[in-house]
Amino acid sequence: MKGFAMLGIGKAGWIEKEAPQCGPLDALVRPIVVAPCTSDIHTVWEGAIGERTEMILGHEAIGEIMEVGALVKDFKKGDKVLVPAITPDWGSINSQRGFPMHSGEALGGWKFSNFKDGCFAELFHVNEADANLAHLPEDIDPVAAVMITDMTTTGFHAAELAEVEIGDTVCVIGIGPVGLNAVAGANLMGASYIYAVGSRPVCAQIAKEYGATEVINYKNGDIVEQILDLTNGAGVDKVCIAGGTVDTFSQAVKMLKPGGCIGSVNYLGSGEFIKVPRVEWAAGMGHKRINGGLTPGGRNRMEKLVSLVQTGKYDPSKLITHKFEGFEKIEDALLLMKDKPVDLVKPVVIIDW
Amino acid sequence: MKGFAMLGIGKAGWIEKEAPQCGPLDALVRPIVVAPCTSDIHTVWEGAIGERTEMILGHEAIGEIMEVGALVKDFKKGDKVLVPAITPDWGSINSQRGFPMHSGEALGGWKFSNFKDGCFAELFHVNEADANLAHLPEDIDPVAAVMITDMTTTGFHAAELAEVEIGDTVCVIGIGPVGLNAVAGANLMGASYIYAVGSRPVCAQIAKEYGATEVINYKNGDIVEQILDLTNGAGVDKVCIAGGTVDTFSQAVKMLKPGGCIGSVNYLGSGEFIKVPRVEWAAGMGHKRINGGLTPGGRNRMEKLVSLVQTGKYDPSKLITHKFEGFEKIEDALLLMKDKPVDLVKPVVIIDW
Amino acid sequence: MKGFAMLGIGKAGWIEKEAPQCGPLDALVRPIVVAPCTSDIHTVWEGAIGERTEMILGHEAIGEIMEVGALVKDFKKGDKVLVPAITPDWGSINSQRGFPMHSGEALGGWKFSNFKDGCFAELFHVNEADANLAHLPEDIDPVAAVMITDMTTTGFHAAELAEVEIGDTVCVIGIGPVGLNAVAGANLMGASYIYAVGSRPVCAQIAKEYGATEVINYKNGDIVEQILDLTNGAGVDKVCIAGGTVDTFSQAVKMLKPGGCIGSVNYLGSGEFIKVPRVEWAAGMGHKRINGGLTPGGRNRMEKLVSLVQTGKYDPSKLITHKFEGFEKIEDALLLMKDKPVDLVKPVVIIDW
Amino acid sequence: MKGFAMLGIGKAGWIEKEAPQCGPLDALVRPIVVAPCTSDIHTVWEGAIGERTEMILGHEAIGEIMEVGALVKDFKKGDKVLVPAITPDWGSINSQRGFPMHSGEALGGWKFSNFKDGCFAELFHVNEADANLAHLPEDIDPVAAVMITDMTTTGFHAAELAEVEIGDTVCVIGIGPVGLNAVAGANLMGASYIYAVGSRPVCAQIAKEYGATEVINYKNGDIVEQILDLTNGAGVDKVCIAGGTVDTFSQAVKMLKPGGCIGSVNYLGSGEFIKVPRVEWAAGMGHKRINGGLTPGGRNRMEKLVSLVQTGKYDPSKLITHKFEGFEKIEDALLLMKDKPVDLVKPVVIIDW
Repeated sequence: MKGFAMLGIGKAGWIEKEAPQCGPLDALVRPIVVAPCTSDIHTVWEGAIGERTEMILGHEAIGEIMEVGALVKDFKKGDKVLVPAITPDWGSINSQRGFPMHSGEALGGWKFSNFKDGCFAELFHVNEADANLAHLPEDIDPVAAVMITDMTTTGFHAAELAEVEIGDTVCVIGIGPVGLNAVAGANLMGASYIYAVGSRPVCAQIAKEYGATEVINYKNGDIVEQILDLTNGAGVDKVCIAGGTVDTFSQAVKMLKPGGCIGSVNYLGSGEFIKVPRVEWAAGMGHKRINGGLTPGGRNRMEKLVSLVQTGKYDPSKLITHKFEGFEKIEDALLLMKDKPVDLVKPVVIIDW
Repeated sequence: MKGFAMLGIGKAGWIEKEAPQCGPLDALVRPIVVAPCTSDIHTVWEGAIGERTEMILGHEAIGEIMEVGALVKDFKKGDKVLVPAITPDWGSINSQRGFPMHSGEALGGWKFSNFKDGCFAELFHVNEADANLAHLPEDIDPVAAVMITDMTTTGFHAAELAEVEIGDTVCVIGIGPVGLNAVAGANLMGASYIYAVGSRPVCAQIAKEYGATEVINYKNGDIVEQILDLTNGAGVDKVCIAGGTVDTFSQAVKMLKPGGCIGSVNYLGSGEFIKVPRVEWAAGMGHKRINGGLTPGGRNRMEKLVSLVQTGKYDPSKLITHKFEGFEKIEDALLLMKDKPVDLVKPVVIIDW
Repeated sequence: MKGFAMLGIGKAGWIEKEAPQCGPLDALVRPIVVAPCTSDIHTVWEGAIGERTEMILGHEAIGEIMEVGALVKDFKKGDKVLVPAITPDWGSINSQRGFPMHSGEALGGWKFSNFKDGCFAELFHVNEADANLAHLPEDIDPVAAVMITDMTTTGFHAAELAEVEIGDTVCVIGIGPVGLNAVAGANLMGASYIYAVGSRPVCAQIAKEYGATEVINYKNGDIVEQILDLTNGAGVDKVCIAGGTVDTFSQAVKMLKPGGCIGSVNYLGSGEFIKVPRVEWAAGMGHKRINGGLTPGGRNRMEKLVSLVQTGKYDPSKLITHKFEGFEKIEDALLLMKDKPVDLVKPVVIIDW
Repeated sequence: MKGFAMLGIGKAGWIEKEAPQCGPLDALVRPIVVAPCTSDIHTVWEGAIGERTEMILGHEAIGEIMEVGALVKDFKKGDKVLVPAITPDWGSINSQRGFPMHSGEALGGWKFSNFKDGCFAELFHVNEADANLAHLPEDIDPVAAVMITDMTTTGFHAAELAEVEIGDTVCVIGIGPVGLNAVAGANLMGASYIYAVGSRPVCAQIAKEYGATEVINYKNGDIVEQILDLTNGAGVDKVCIAGGTVDTFSQAVKMLKPGGCIGSVNYLGSGEFIKVPRVEWAAGMGHKRINGGLTPGGRNRMEKLVSLVQTGKYDPSKLITHKFEGFEKIEDALLLMKDKPVDLVKPVVIIDW
């Protein structure tokens, strides 16, 4: 079986590997649309999750089921499915505690291209198929749908973690594909003013289409000052973090009202400490909640997000700026992601539809 | 001072009354736009809250401040304001417990045209002006804004009580002006499929504009069956009740998934018991939550709802089907509400702008 | 294999049956301590869940593992375990929605002696062993521990559903073994005044030991009036329902403050409607939340409850008033439960330890 | 009027000052029992809140009402009352948002000895008397009750912010008087294992009486390692922070399970940033919530806490290790707090009872 893999930190390439085996609860899936993710770039070229060799990359896929285990009930060979980036072990203690994305251990629900072969392969393995796959409805474009498997669910989770409520004023820091979905998520949860922080015109345009009322460019000055100016010094009710570094939390706290909430889904790749500024965190007593988490995954999550596309309330296709065709184009798409040209939001690879 | 008042159960008319006094925390307000509410009709012609004599009606108003008390800080004579239908006593124990709408006693935050003269007067009294009034921004049409004082906040509260989340399938029972706002509220909170139950074409049209994906007419058969058909037997995640009777809860429970939630803002005028069906409530053990409540009011609530209008995310003007001009037209508007012609959603009276 | 079974409505007796099979995720368990439950009585003699034939009864057990499936990782033959009454299918959609007790369908997590053979057998089957069994620590008495599998978790859930908070005044209606645990649960969650409603001295005594500050006897007059007298007319913050009928909800609503919450775990066996009184439910608008649900189950729940016993913060042994020894005594214990003598709280059967 | 005041950073002493005036909603109160707080020490000798001159210190008091304003309804001259350290402006926007402790601005509910004269005076002023005072019941010892006004409510709030649930394993860092109440609060909310971190024997003893199952001494090694050892590497469900510095958050995050929660009530006096360790915060994605806040105050809060004392479920008198008699002993008590002898938990000054 052929796959595009991390060969070691700083190196990626095509490999041949034995096809995965299908356990009684599992499915084997053939990808039909995939998308590379910035985290694939971090994984390979920044060594973000440590050394890996011959690990097939990719965790965003729409696929066709090629085989299911004996105990799988709701899926069969030939079914078209959404495969979420996060595929929890649903019976684990952390799942029972309400955190399936941390099944087994912290971040343990993120398996593909983390500690297991991903979807940039001719065939890939899905654990607990009944619980982790979702049928792709016939009225949903698989090319748009692949966004849901990671970008949408992750971005929306930022708004969920920020506990956005009707009429809230929200700042979204970072408007790459995840941040744009944080904008869309905050908007879907009822935010009124949404200040989106970013600089690229292609992203600014989509941010507005997704509900941002203003796009703030950090090149025009300190974003905290810009936000305080726009809110007459009051600050915002909630902040979504979908970009930046450990320093970004400092900005977030400074622009937040007492009793406000920060929701971060950003992968923090470096720095010893997240920086929470003491004075603006009201010396510890300002009720400015700080939440950060990996997106939920699994079947129910996928089905709920798909329903928003079906009802026309959310359009993931806006995110797709570049389309490739053919399995072998996975490499080009990934390298595009690495190069990050100014007009890129998200590339997809249409393998076979 | 002139006012349009309840004279006794079944009787309403114009009266002369002494103008109210302004305490140190209070304001006296002159109405500039008002709207009659179905509850005014219940109050007078159904005796819903019991006998009242010479009580001035009306609790939906945009006004101009004519006087403020010595301790009022943020408002002054001449300010244009939204006056919420619910004006809590913010320091009361129930407010401290998180339920300002029940300050003093159950429903105690609802003062106007309940146990205190309302806004259908040349002048009316507002308690705790700094906490209960909200400035009307210059970019907001006062005619549209009067909807926010009761219809919007009440309808949205149905969606809040139903705990609508991203991707939920929701049924809204009743699409009068409150129910239409329940639709808008559920949509703003991220519902995907919204099934709105009603029959009048004028309402059905607005329901769709506010986010309903389907309008269900109870004249076409049992609504529970219609909902179960539309959801392949699964039922809905959440139900908003904004119309009907004590029997409506039976339908709501029957169409609800285990773990679902009902949010009701309906005033229930008759019947000894709300009917929760034992079998479909899973013999008591189905985790189908039943919430019913009076809307929040006060300044912060008004400001947050206004921000949704300012950002173009919600348009209350859709609700207004009939406009009257002149203080003396309050009577006509109220009687129109009583007659409820088929093309009526909500009338307003523009007194002087 | 021998088991004590429901033979049909109104009939129970010993049967011979083939031993269950062990799937790859499952375990087969030999009971070492069991307890009959009032719901076994309802099932057989009231036909509460409909007709059943040759269904082995019992869902409260401490056991020894006799066999595990190939995919089971954390348990092995010979392990002593707590078997919760509720054993969800953890990957099901309802589990993912946060309601594992309704996995598959409403109440679908309750399998034993509902739609599957229970623990009054020489051997019984447990689904998803890693997720549904919990190791019995060596310092925990298995006789006391059997209470945790249903009585404790169900009673505590009443307090959870009632959303008890620090300093709340709580009424617990019903002080059989579940109600007593509702008292203990409310006390553990920080209630101050706990009014326990019941009449039997044996229960009243335990109620006080578990934190009730007053025991109210319905034989001394209307309990609503007694509660209102004790609270100077204010009513209580929260009500736990662990006994009574569909009429009990009427009492609960009447004694509840606006903004209060009812948590019921009572199985409601008859009556078409749960009765929520319209006037005292503030005509629908009093924010008196009504929650009713089946207890959570599974491994994590058991482990957390066991930790309360290990730390001496909760003593389940108080509930046990009658002990039987020997597998064949299951019948006597069950019939004792049926007869319900005045000094009975809970019997156990010690099979072999 | 005489009072013990901050004269400037590093200086405190007796001053003469004009007695406060009583507005229409206010009360003037004569202290009968007071207690100095560590924050008085920080205020004067560390300049924690900046320069203050002639500001009377003290914010923990039981008092007798000497005068009430014309609009005060529930209190009268001669009433004995608890005066909470936090006395919000209940109608402010932040109060309406659910954060009365931040009324006006962050921490704005903390007025006494922050930006207003405190209770170490012959007479002091209380804003919104009906909302901020609570009657002292006759069966409650005023000496014990003074603990409730700040120590109890602040400590309990740590457990609330940490979202402690039934059966949780909790670590409480810091067991001064606030931390001891965090232990009591966690215990009241249902924690099983409570690991209290501290070193002084007097505090360790009370911690155990309040529900700590183990006292961990940081002098015996890294507390993170000690906690991980005690929990077999799993860590704790929740952490309460009631002592330490900005570095303490690093320890808290390291000992916390994914999905866990930190509740801090600690005043952080120095350091530019609170230190949240990136790796153990799961690179931003571990759902380890960080909450920090000022305690709630006001009448309802006091009444609920008093009810726990009345029912014998919580005993604040354990905290009092030193008693002084006479108004003029306020100085000695404060200096004792500054010296912090090894056997001190909390001193009180009984002025006149």
